[in-house]
Order: sequence, then C-alpha cells, then structure tokens
Amino acid sequence: MGTMKTVLIIIDGLGDLPTPKTPLQEAHTPTLDQLAKEGITGMLAPVGKYIVPGSDVSHLQILGYDPKKYYPGRGPLEALGAGIDLNEGDVAFRANFATLKESVVVDRRAGRIDSKTAKELAKELSTTIDDVEIIVKHTVEHRLAIVFRGKDLGNKVGETDPHGKGEIKKVVGEDKESKKTAEIMNKFTAYAIEKLQKHHLNTGRQLPANCVLLRGVGKYRKVENFEKRFGIKGSCVAGGALYKGIGKYIGLNVIDVPEATGDKNTNVNAKINAVNNAKDEFVFMHFKACDSAGHDGDFETKKNMLEKLDRALTALKADNIIITGDHSTPVSMKAHSGHEVPILVWGLERKDDVEKFDEQNCMQGGLGHIEGKDIVPLILNISRKAKKYGS
Amino acid sequence: MGTMKTVLIIIDGLGDLPTPKTPLQEAHTPTLDQLAKEGITGMLAPVGKYIVPGSDVSHLQILGYDPKKYYPGRGPLEALGAGIDLNEGDVAFRANFATLKESVVVDRRAGRIDSKTAKELAKELSTTIDDVEIIVKHTVEHRLAIVFRGKDLGNKVGETDPHGKGEIKKVVGEDKESKKTAEIMNKFTAYAIEKLQKHHLNTGRQLPANCVLLRGVGKYRKVENFEKRFGIKGSCVAGGALYKGIGKYIGLNVIDVPEATGDKNTNVNAKINAVNNAKDEFVFMHFKACDSAGHDGDFETKKNMLEKLDRALTALKADNIIITGDHSTPVSMKAHSGHEVPILVWGLERKDDVEKFDEQNCMQGGLGHIEGKDIVPLILNISRKAKKYGS
Repeated sequence: MGTMKTVLIIIDGLGDLPTPKTPLQEAHTPTLDQLAKEGITGMLAPVGKYIVPGSDVSHLQILGYDPKKYYPGRGPLEALGAGIDLNEGDVAFRANFATLKESVVVDRRAGRIDSKTAKELAKELSTTIDDVEIIVKHTVEHRLAIVFRGKDLGNKVGETDPHGKGEIKKVVGEDKESKKTAEIMNKFTAYAIEKLQKHHLNTGRQLPANCVLLRGVGKYRKVENFEKRFGIKGSCVAGGALYKGIGKYIGLNVIDVPEATGDKNTNVNAKINAVNNAKDEFVFMHFKACDSAGHDGDFETKKNMLEKLDRALTALKADNIIITGDHSTPVSMKAHSGHEVPILVWGLERKDDVEKFDEQNCMQGGLGHIEGKDIVPLILNISRKAKKYGS
Repeated sequence: MGTMKTVLIIIDGLGDLPTPKTPLQEAHTPTLDQLAKEGITGMLAPVGKYIVPGSDVSHLQILGYDPKKYYPGRGPLEALGAGIDLNEGDVAFRANFATLKESVVVDRRAGRIDSKTAKELAKELSTTIDDVEIIVKHTVEHRLAIVFRGKDLGNKVGETDPHGKGEIKKVVGEDKESKKTAEIMNKFTAYAIEKLQKHHLNTGRQLPANCVLLRGVGKYRKVENFEKRFGIKGSCVAGGALYKGIGKYIGLNVIDVPEATGDKNTNVNAKINAVNNAKDEFVFMHFKACDSAGHDGDFETKKNMLEKLDRALTALKADNIIITGDHSTPVSMKAHSGHEVPILVWGLERKDDVEKFDEQNCMQGGLGHIEGKDIVPLILNISRKAKKYGS
C-alpha cells in the first residue's frame, strides 16, 4: 500500500443559524453534497459542547493541542505567522497602527491604512529599549506583530489598546517579570508615537498612523511537534497569518501560497493546487472568508464564499477528506457562537444516509456528535497511522 | 422477582467498512435482526473515539477495567488463559516456536507446527535458571505461554522476537529488576535452542521448531474481582486462551467448553449451551472467528461466521442480551481499526426504530454513540443490579 493523503479543510465560521435557511443550506454546493453522500457526516463541537471558541483555541484543539495546556496567547501565533522566528521566552503581541488626536485614539485602524504605507512605517519601529530587543513586523493593512526579546519578561500584563475611542492605556504588570514587560510596553508606546508623529508618510493623512496599540500578549514556548506527537507529517495551507502561525507553532510544514490572502479575494484554486502538490500524508487547509462574512452579517457573501470553495473542491485529490469548521459565526449574530458545526468525512470511512452537507442534515449523520479532541484520532484512524493500543 | 440472566456476546473484530457492503450487511442474520428490531441499537467506541484497540485492552475496558490502570500486558493474560495460576510478581510472555537457520529466524511459526508435536516439545522447556523458575505451557499450534517466577523480576524489557526474518534479539533491561529479567530471557533463549536442536521430534522436519521467541511481556498483579467491584457474579465462555485469561484475571467463572476452539471450526452451539447452563446472573461469551477472517481479508468467511453465530443464537435463553464487538477488523484493511462497532441491547431496555443489525443501521440507533466504559453500567442497569447514586 502506498502513502495515503488525508486532507482536513477548516472553513472558518462555517456554522450558522436558520433565517429561515442558513448560508450553507442556501448555497449551491454540489461537491460538498457529493462528498457527504458518499461519506459519513456528523456534528462537531470544536472545543466542547456549546463553548464559544476563538479561532486560535479551536484550531489548536482540532489539531490535537489542548488549548488549556498549549494556548500561548494570540500574539506568539500571529508573530510566527508573520514570519518571525521566536525564541523560548519571547513575549509577543498583536498590534494595530491607530490614529491619536489630542491624546485620544480616534481610529483604531488608522483609516485601515494601506499595506504598502504601513509596511514602510513599520520599518521605523524595530528598536531596543533598555535590554529588550523589539521586533516589529507588518502583516496586512493596519496590523502588526511585535516581539519583545530579552531576559525575564512576564506576560501578566494588560493591553494598551482602549478597544474604542479613548486614551491609550498605561499598562501595569502583576508580578516582577510582568512589571518589566509593562514598563517596556509603555516606553515602546511613547517611542512609537515620537517616531510616527513626524514621519513624512503621515504628512497630510487625515487619519495618520501615529501610534501603535498592543494586545493579545503571550509568551512563547516550544511545543512537541505534530509529527513527533502523532506519528504523521503534516503540511499547512493558509492565507491568514494566525493560521500559518498555528501551523508553524505545532510544527506543520507551512506552504506559502502568495495568492492566498485570507479574505474574499483569496485564490482558493491555488490553495487546492498547493494541497494537491503537498508531499506530506496530512494536509490542513484553512479557508477564512466565511467567518469574515459572518462577522459582517453578510449572508450573500458567506453563501458565495461557500460556492467559491465548492467549485474549487472539484479539483481536490486525496484519499481521505475531512471538511468542517472551527466554530459557527452566524450572520444573524455577527459573532462567534457555541453552536456545533457540520462535519463530513470521505474516504476510508463508512457511509451514512445523509446526502447533503448542511447544519440540519448532518445532525442525522452517522458520526453522531463529536468534539475537536476526536479529530486527530479520526485522522490517524483513516490514514492508517494509528498505533494499536494493546495487542 | 427471580434471578435475571444478562448475556454479553462480543464478536471479535465485528465492525467493517463497506466494499460496497460490509460482511454484516451482506450476511443473512435473521436472529440478530430480530433482536435489533425488538430491542435498541447504537454504535460503540470500545476504548475511545477512533482509538484502535487490541483485543486485550478492549475487553478489559468493556468489562469495566480501565486498561490504563489494569492492563497487565498480553503475557499474563495468555498465561492465565493457558491454565497457569499466576502469583503476584510473576513475569509472563507469549511465545512462539520458530525455525532458526544459521542464526536467522526463517519462520516465526515453525511452519505452523501441529499442536500435538508442539505440546510434546514444550514439555522439555520448563526449567530453572539461576533462582528463577520457568514454566512453559503450550496453547495451540506454535503458541506458548511462559512464566518467569522469582524474586525481583522487572518487566521493562524488549522482546527476543524479531517480528520477521532476522536474528533473535538480545534483550536489555531498563532498570535493575528488568536487567535480571532480560538476563534470564537471553539465557532461556539459549537453553531452548540447545534443548530443541537435538530433539528427536525435530528430526527430519523441514521447518524444525528449534527456538522460542518471547514477546508481550507483562507483570502480574491481582486485581479486584468482578463480583466485588460491580456486585454481580459473572461467567466467561470462550475458546481463545486470551479471552479465558481475561475472564480469569478479573475473576469471572471461566467455563470450559472443549469444543470451543477459538477458530472457525468452533462449536458455537456448545458455547450457547454453556451460556444457557451458566448459573451466574451475568455471562460474557466471546466469538473469535470474525476477527481472524478480517485479518485474512476473507469477506466470505467473515460473513459465514456471522451466519453461523446467528443460527446458534436461536437457542440462546436470557433475559437481557447485549451483542457487540471489541473493535472493527475491516476485511479491506486486514487489521484492527478505530471505527466504531454496532451494538444491540435486547431485554429490559427500550426499543428504537432500527430493524437490522449492521454498521449503517445502528448509526441511527436509540443508544446513540457510546463507549466501552458505558457497558458495565448498562449491564448493571438492565440486570437491576445498579446501586442508586444519591437518595
């Protein structure tokens, strides 16, 4: 028997609520339906029954890393995804360029500044404060990943981000090590304002990118890699920095697909092509646009994105295919929810009576109601990579 | 109310994958279907979702002994099943007669030597090395159970079995006690070769049984018996040594049925008869042949064995009947898998809409998806033997 390929596709924010139908019910998705018909379906609680997960936590759980033990915070995952190699003990943040007027943050995204300008501005910000090296890397639009590298940095700190109009918050640390981090955060905030205020690229901008807001703190430590942990090599195909970061964090081979943008303009055909060309036995592919449409309350776009993915799936080549979501993002809620997501498994698995891939049909599925922690055992079982327990 | 009898029948390797039907779907099994129709069905993950269990581990879990705590290794279970009474601290192995040519194992089963010859040869092997008594007992064909009895014997040792063509492995022990075991293993291996090489029963055999391979090491310790643990007395009806050994290990009353051979020639009518005559309120019956057919990739035999069992089941007399498997052994995989197995419960239980006992129908069953750890509570519940929790 040759090597088998098992592909896990996570459609971010897949699940929805009926109004009176869900986007998945309304969408024309013949490929997903055919896979469901030929395979077996069910419902997945990605982290636990009715738990409302963030995408980061949910992906870790689905990929076999219990977030209670392995969640490093959002910052390190974003930093890894942005291409920064982290060292044990680094403290990392997500950050935004924002607009400050008379000490008040008036726009948390600096008018969604364009990526090109933001990248130039970010180059000015990497520095050293006291004995801490600060690495700033631009990702997309107003977004940055920032790493503090130095001795004895804690992560029990708040955020400088006011999360709305208001003054930049002064940060305090809970313990000695975190007090040091807080001090550097406050000094860096002042440093960034000074550098950015007078930057020529901000001249004439109605909403200048004249400050940086820090949030999502986390301290990085290395975790056992996926292959060592589960005995199967894996690749990761994703657009968004977070998802590449998660892949990198757990030791998947992150395949760069330049046309994968993590938004609705993403080239999903190029991603499927990368999945087909991946050499590893396991490939995780992430598809973001449905979640963004859910957050925007945009039914049509969520439906269209499902149809876009469905068309691309016709080209997918694999022995086993698992398709599910990391959580529900109901259009009617414009937020993540704890409703289960449908799941289908096609390949070295059984067949049930379900013929359509959607929330209501998969409730009748032969897999029943499973949880995120069951997914890696499922992958290993259908990949013939599971080690027998006992003899 | 008089005494109730609850029978649990485990069909080894029951579950399968569709090609396009499973053996259970293809088999003509009116009795199983009638029980399913009159009772309630579901799917069982014997050890845990998508976990691939060995039969030993799975039986322990189903019978209420969590293998993470109670699995003693295969050796002690086989030795108990072979009829050796074990003492606390005994170290036991499964072993094979094999054929050695110029220091290389050329046949791991000595040409599947017949039971009669093997039994004679085995008689030569019990001995004492240093201060360790070695008890060798033949089971079937090339198979042996071997016990080391002595002070301070560890079980952190490898196997002498090369599991393929190759030299017999020299064993090393991880700690002081295991080093002692390893030394005895190596000495016994040399002793067995010396005894067997010149044995007259090997003269002229093309594949002489001229060495012994050790594997499946385990250290025996007594566990709380089934009656004390669960408040119900149980019997065990099985052919294979392992299953009798499991019965003995947990304190079931192991009923000897000479015609129960643990292979496809087994007299399953005699086993059902023994179940009917058993005096205990709970009887566990094991049926092996489906698993062996699965390992052989033999669809027809697996189907035929299900039909053979089904005919015998017409004579079964019990108040409650539970029928399930210990794992799937799909014919298409020729190996154990982590796919769930169907389960039916008939008697003091509810009824669902399922009318046929097979993988696809039981997915719709009223029991839903349950796990091995749920079986003893289920038995106690329908036997009216469960103790109320709370008041």
